[in-house]
Amino acid sequence: MPLTTGEFATIKSIKDRLPGPPDPNQVWIGDDAAILTLPGGGWLLLAADTVVGGVHADLTLTSMADLGWKAMAACISDIAAMGGEAGYALVTVAGPPGTDLDGLYDGLAEAAQEYACPIVGGDLANARALVVTVAVTGTCDGPPVRRSGARPGDLLWVTGPLGRSAAGLRLLRSGVMGAGRDGPEAESLIAAHARPRARLAAGGAARRAGATAMIDISDGLAADIGHVADMSGVGFRLTEVPIAQGASRDDAVGGGEDFELVFAVPPGSAVPEAFAGLDQLICIGEVTSDPGERILAGRTLDPLGWEHRW
Amino acid sequence: MPLTTGEFATIKSIKDRLPGPPDPNQVWIGDDAAILTLPGGGWLLLAADTVVGGVHADLTLTSMADLGWKAMAACISDIAAMGGEAGYALVTVAGPPGTDLDGLYDGLAEAAQEYACPIVGGDLANARALVVTVAVTGTCDGPPVRRSGARPGDLLWVTGPLGRSAAGLRLLRSGVMGAGRDGPEAESLIAAHARPRARLAAGGAARRAGATAMIDISDGLAADIGHVADMSGVGFRLTEVPIAQGASRDDAVGGGEDFELVFAVPPGSAVPEAFAGLDQLICIGEVTSDPGERILAGRTLDPLGWEHRW
Repeated sequence: MPLTTGEFATIKSIKDRLPGPPDPNQVWIGDDAAILTLPGGGWLLLAADTVVGGVHADLTLTSMADLGWKAMAACISDIAAMGGEAGYALVTVAGPPGTDLDGLYDGLAEAAQEYACPIVGGDLANARALVVTVAVTGTCDGPPVRRSGARPGDLLWVTGPLGRSAAGLRLLRSGVMGAGRDGPEAESLIAAHARPRARLAAGGAARRAGATAMIDISDGLAADIGHVADMSGVGFRLTEVPIAQGASRDDAVGGGEDFELVFAVPPGSAVPEAFAGLDQLICIGEVTSDPGERILAGRTLDPLGWEHRW
Repeated sequence: MPLTTGEFATIKSIKDRLPGPPDPNQVWIGDDAAILTLPGGGWLLLAADTVVGGVHADLTLTSMADLGWKAMAACISDIAAMGGEAGYALVTVAGPPGTDLDGLYDGLAEAAQEYACPIVGGDLANARALVVTVAVTGTCDGPPVRRSGARPGDLLWVTGPLGRSAAGLRLLRSGVMGAGRDGPEAESLIAAHARPRARLAAGGAARRAGATAMIDISDGLAADIGHVADMSGVGFRLTEVPIAQGASRDDAVGGGEDFELVFAVPPGSAVPEAFAGLDQLICIGEVTSDPGERILAGRTLDPLGWEHRW
């Protein structure tokens, strides 16, 4: 592959170089989490996520505890996006001497407790940059929901309004204490950025409600719903993007790390009922048969999502 | 914990901050791999290892393919040290744009194939330093071998002579092409450094032969056998360290990354027979009852192993 390539093309190139699963019930590279089958029956999910200081998180705006929380929540969100339950976590920290491991592990441990996903091991190493990698296992009491199962006519739902994390980051970056950062709305947006939530309960409910495809919004709605369309060989028509209070439309369409889930279900499924009391579920459009159709509010969508460069 | 602390003290501090397993059949932090029990019965092993460019590997002396191999083999070695079989791997790469991912994944894929441990997922991220993290699962058809089970009177065995990796690194660092690097011995030592082997078969054989404790030599014999003694609450008396051809005594005692296994078995166990044809098994001493006794060739052993600083 060329020396400098987009992340998604690079992942595809790596996937093409490596052997794929011999068992069609398994999914290896290319979904939120790998789907494996256990010898004794049942499903094992595996996912890994890395948070890099200065890349995923501005260390002048993010506490080490928040960084730890985010690393754990981002990885558990991959299990949520399969409709699974979290199992166990391995945490690996590479960083310079003097790294505030106490703070980092405070946040990691809080998220581990919140999502009942205990930290059972990992590794520590010195490095010039701070790199926190979390790997988690998950289980599923039925077939996990892949990205690839969306069918024309399915309705698309999102587990809440979008753009809160991006708006919170803007508030933090503005550096203005007082006006604009005060009040419950600002605090809530900043918290959405600092302590994103993994939607484990919502993902499980979507799976039980018959979801045909699901993904978590980590790169932005435009990019992530595009992944579902690519993997499913379908298009989509979104009526509008639900914009969180205090967020802009760009925050909602292009901002990542809300970790809300988007999923497809056949029309007529009892989706709102399955979510009663869980989340603010919103129907945002439908799946169409033309893989080239990527429409938001009548206009073709630009995939604005975040990619690392290689 | 203080800002700059040794790695082993830091791991202990982290372990003390986190909850431990409610089930005595499980082991979380503190062994080569975590031991988990599956709902349907059976054992799940989890381990993670990080290789940092410029710290674990001098990138002017190590090819990216060798770095990939080493990252995978080091992690699978943790499964070998429990007497398990490798399952699946997640690979996470953080690095600068322009990183030779083709070369890196060549080495990762070769090791994945060698140890039947396919790469099923992971993550890619940009970072100023190259950090390759591998997490693997493992299974075990009987209770995995912990570090903590050595008993006074047990014999200590090692799966081969030591110091080959350290000697190979010295040859590479000497930078002298020609004399000293030529010939099969030099090539073999350099290969031992560049492409260390995970002793999966030997670990399984040791477990089936009744091993009471086991560890892989990644930090050096002195440090690693010290971990077994610490966890088992015992001491040890080693007659001599087996020195590989071309290696020095310091290479053998203090050098890490040979990934040979050291294990304890009750006297009278049929150990050599269990290993017939597998490895060059050597009895190096015995377990004693005094936890303060750490003797090599009649002298108290200095723990020379490698630690990262925090």
